[in-house]
Amino acid sequence: MMVDEGLELLEDDDCFELLSLQSIGRVALTMGALPVVFPVNYKLDGRTIVFRTGPGAKLAAAANRAVIAFEVDESDPAVHSGWSVLALGVASLVDDPGELERLDRLEVSAWAGGNRQSLVKVPVEMISGRRILTSERE
Amino acid sequence: MMVDEGLELLEDDDCFELLSLQSIGRVALTMGALPVVFPVNYKLDGRTIVFRTGPGAKLAAAANRAVIAFEVDESDPAVHSGWSVLALGVASLVDDPGELERLDRLEVSAWAGGNRQSLVKVPVEMISGRRILTSERE
Repeated sequence: MMVDEGLELLEDDDCFELLSLQSIGRVALTMGALPVVFPVNYKLDGRTIVFRTGPGAKLAAAANRAVIAFEVDESDPAVHSGWSVLALGVASLVDDPGELERLDRLEVSAWAGGNRQSLVKVPVEMISGRRILTSERE
Repeated sequence: MMVDEGLELLEDDDCFELLSLQSIGRVALTMGALPVVFPVNYKLDGRTIVFRTGPGAKLAAAANRAVIAFEVDESDPAVHSGWSVLALGVASLVDDPGELERLDRLEVSAWAGGNRQSLVKVPVEMISGRRILTSERE
């Protein structure tokens, strides 16, 4: 087990497993030289993150094929445990009709209403994960 | 009430109120031109976010007085409700002894072990928040 400053470093497969179990992640990107972060509902398609969005920063990032960071975490305040996974990839709009049809079957939805019809995919190119070593604290 | 694509835009005071009620947020910063996001335990001191960190990207950002984004959110999958707050500010290390002593009383702790003794402060310069309008979905 790799350990870094009280955190267990997770294997890639474990990171994807954790990603597959959650439904809300956070997209971080750079907008006008400033970092911004927005939560999204997502699905994992193999090793690709898929989410819906409407006009705005996330859509612009996808249209421009920007590198985005995608973060998912879970924590339990009662026992001070938790983990986080950080994925990086180039975002792009899904516009191929066949791919759109296939990904539609994943039922990627956005909880917020409004015009969130565009489907964005982020094939993960780098992934890392950390888990708090609670046993070390005792 | 300001509304944007199915999301209620929150007033600044409401954003700070939400920040004050949570204990885990996510720091987003740019590292070698790539966006990265890490969860941290934090406390709010007035309108300043305070967290502990050890050697690494967050400490380097503070030492370099980088602009960081700080995100906090909460969601309820059962009813598809949720909110998120995004704050921006210039991170810096707390090194004034009097300020260190005062902020120590906030009991800012990091759940992960390891060497996380450095205290970082981020006076919030920009803040925005969004809440999902669940009633619109029905």
